Amino acid sequence: MWSRRRFLTTGALGSTAALAGCDCADRCAAPGTIPGGEERIRSRALKMVTTWPKDFPGLGQAAKDTASFISMMSGGAITVDVYAAGELVGAFDSFDAVSSGSADLYHGADYYWTAKSRAYPFFTAVPFGMTATEQLAWIEGADGQDLWDELAAGFGIKPFPAGNTGHQMGGWFRREVNTLDDLIGLKIRMPGIGGEVMRRAGATAVTIPGGELYQSLQSGAIDAAEWVGPWNDLASGFYREAKYYYWPGFHEPGAQLSIGLNLEVWEDMTAAEKLLIQNAARAANNLSIGKFQALNAKALDILVKEHGVQLRRMPDDVLAALAAATRDVLEEIAAAGPLERRIYDSFRESLTQSLRWNAISDAAYLAVRRELLGD
Amino acid sequence: MWSRRRFLTTGALGSTAALAGCDCADRCAAPGTIPGGEERIRSRALKMVTTWPKDFPGLGQAAKDTASFISMMSGGAITVDVYAAGELVGAFDSFDAVSSGSADLYHGADYYWTAKSRAYPFFTAVPFGMTATEQLAWIEGADGQDLWDELAAGFGIKPFPAGNTGHQMGGWFRREVNTLDDLIGLKIRMPGIGGEVMRRAGATAVTIPGGELYQSLQSGAIDAAEWVGPWNDLASGFYREAKYYYWPGFHEPGAQLSIGLNLEVWEDMTAAEKLLIQNAARAANNLSIGKFQALNAKALDILVKEHGVQLRRMPDDVLAALAAATRDVLEEIAAAGPLERRIYDSFRESLTQSLRWNAISDAAYLAVRRELLGD
Repeated sequence: MWSRRRFLTTGALGSTAALAGCDCADRCAAPGTIPGGEERIRSRALKMVTTWPKDFPGLGQAAKDTASFISMMSGGAITVDVYAAGELVGAFDSFDAVSSGSADLYHGADYYWTAKSRAYPFFTAVPFGMTATEQLAWIEGADGQDLWDELAAGFGIKPFPAGNTGHQMGGWFRREVNTLDDLIGLKIRMPGIGGEVMRRAGATAVTIPGGELYQSLQSGAIDAAEWVGPWNDLASGFYREAKYYYWPGFHEPGAQLSIGLNLEVWEDMTAAEKLLIQNAARAANNLSIGKFQALNAKALDILVKEHGVQLRRMPDDVLAALAAATRDVLEEIAAAGPLERRIYDSFRESLTQSLRWNAISDAAYLAVRRELLGD
Repeated sequence: MWSRRRFLTTGALGSTAALAGCDCADRCAAPGTIPGGEERIRSRALKMVTTWPKDFPGLGQAAKDTASFISMMSGGAITVDVYAAGELVGAFDSFDAVSSGSADLYHGADYYWTAKSRAYPFFTAVPFGMTATEQLAWIEGADGQDLWDELAAGFGIKPFPAGNTGHQMGGWFRREVNTLDDLIGLKIRMPGIGGEVMRRAGATAVTIPGGELYQSLQSGAIDAAEWVGPWNDLASGFYREAKYYYWPGFHEPGAQLSIGLNLEVWEDMTAAEKLLIQNAARAANNLSIGKFQALNAKALDILVKEHGVQLRRMPDDVLAALAAATRDVLEEIAAAGPLERRIYDSFRESLTQSLRWNAISDAAYLAVRRELLGD
């Protein structure tokens, strides 16, 4: 399969002179490189900060996968040192670290950067928004990536999708929610827009770091907590403190994880290096969609069969009230500025198209199959 | 960002001697390579045969993406020449070409290899089977890849997912299907297991190459034809000859495309080269999931609004009859041999878990959202 001829005809060496009379000093000055001008992969060391605790399953795995894919696919020329939250900077300082250049890239969830722009949650998840597939349609098949680039460039960052949790559960509740009144005064851990929507429906939504969640449920400091889905939630043991596990999750129907690179680092890269980074992220995204689907399904079985978890459906009138509040909050975000408006309009147009297509494809199929095959 | 020190500490050169006293002849003997033993990306020319016509949208694009990702991410060290169906070998000879080593890899849909093993359709799509996400769950999150490797190794091939069409439409019909009786004698183009299921329901299912489909519909040689989805179907112009566009597609709920590499070529690769190939395929898979969702949605709008296409839902009793026939056909496939049985059992177990998880996640969410947001 080896073909010297093929290599020469592609001109990747630039000149056959390099073969005839090799300039050793020149070749050795850049070890680990492939000669070829714009096409080469050069040696480089990258620092990746993340918003995840050390050895965190699911979300943390997507960060590790992205990093190791970059390093391994480059034949070791690019190294990526991964720092868990707190090791180099705190989780929520990752954005500033990359923006200022003290780190080269982050892996996280872009809704953590809401203080930078209220439009950031559209690039992770918003209530009653997109599934993992729909999010990819907006980013890869419409103008989602362009708008995201424009938003992030204002902070000196270049973003890509790099993982997706799929559908997240509605959360762990110590008592049942049967009517809209049951939300009044409910102390629930739910960050971001989901939390804001809950507040408008009368709940007391609080933000508590993941590491303190279990204790807060145990002590009764909170009545309910959303986290991720069965895979991550089983590991956290919340079922021991709250038996009711609610579905569907209105707040994060497919949370996209992301990397963000320092823009100067990005712009210094060759076309080959850029594609290698982008495709490492795409591969991690693809892998995580499969893993979350498979491992959420397995973990759900264990939660129900071995730990006696009670699945409960959020009542229709509660979901309707949360959807109405969502509409208000999203409109307010769109009013925050011209870029926020363009992002919201684009997101909504893409979602509207997905709704129409899903009505006769995935949504219709899943309903028919369930009717015929059961669950 | 450049770090000589970092490069040395990773040991990617194997020995610092290479820096101190470079053996020029040795370095120049393998131009385009990254030194580093098992980690390096070496120059190599690959021939990719495909089952797709030249410049074919959607499915053909996934083949091109996979090839260009491999080439560009390798910094041009690996070149991939892509051959459309018929250019090097016929579409359905791609498998034998790779198996024998006259081509290095194929891009296609593995259900074309049913004559090699009746289990092959499980790695593309089977009626009432998996969506794109569920297929990834089986392949990436359970033992789907291991079983696929075992099946393909028997033919000297190493397979990977490299694209997914998402949900396919039920097809173009010249007359409506209102009852089960309307299937009796219906001449429909539907290949594979879907066609076999149609036959058991009384239809006359035929296999016609894509290039002859339009003429067959026009002449009345067939009454109906399934192809792909709105994106590919709009381009083919079937709406001019058959106004009824049926949903949901029972036969291919998420058709996975694939690459298959000659096993000797694969085993000759370094760990870095292998991961680069696998991740090029993963990236193409991720990209195609997004593109098919976005472009199917856009094309559906055009078909309905500009071409007056009539969407029709396949009646419940027809779907129930097709599901019953599917069960029979899949059981027969499982009875074909011990490996076919293990593949079917694994597929069914993974699908069963996805059914349970989807019932409270994607399927439930899509139904609720549609109720609240409309379509």
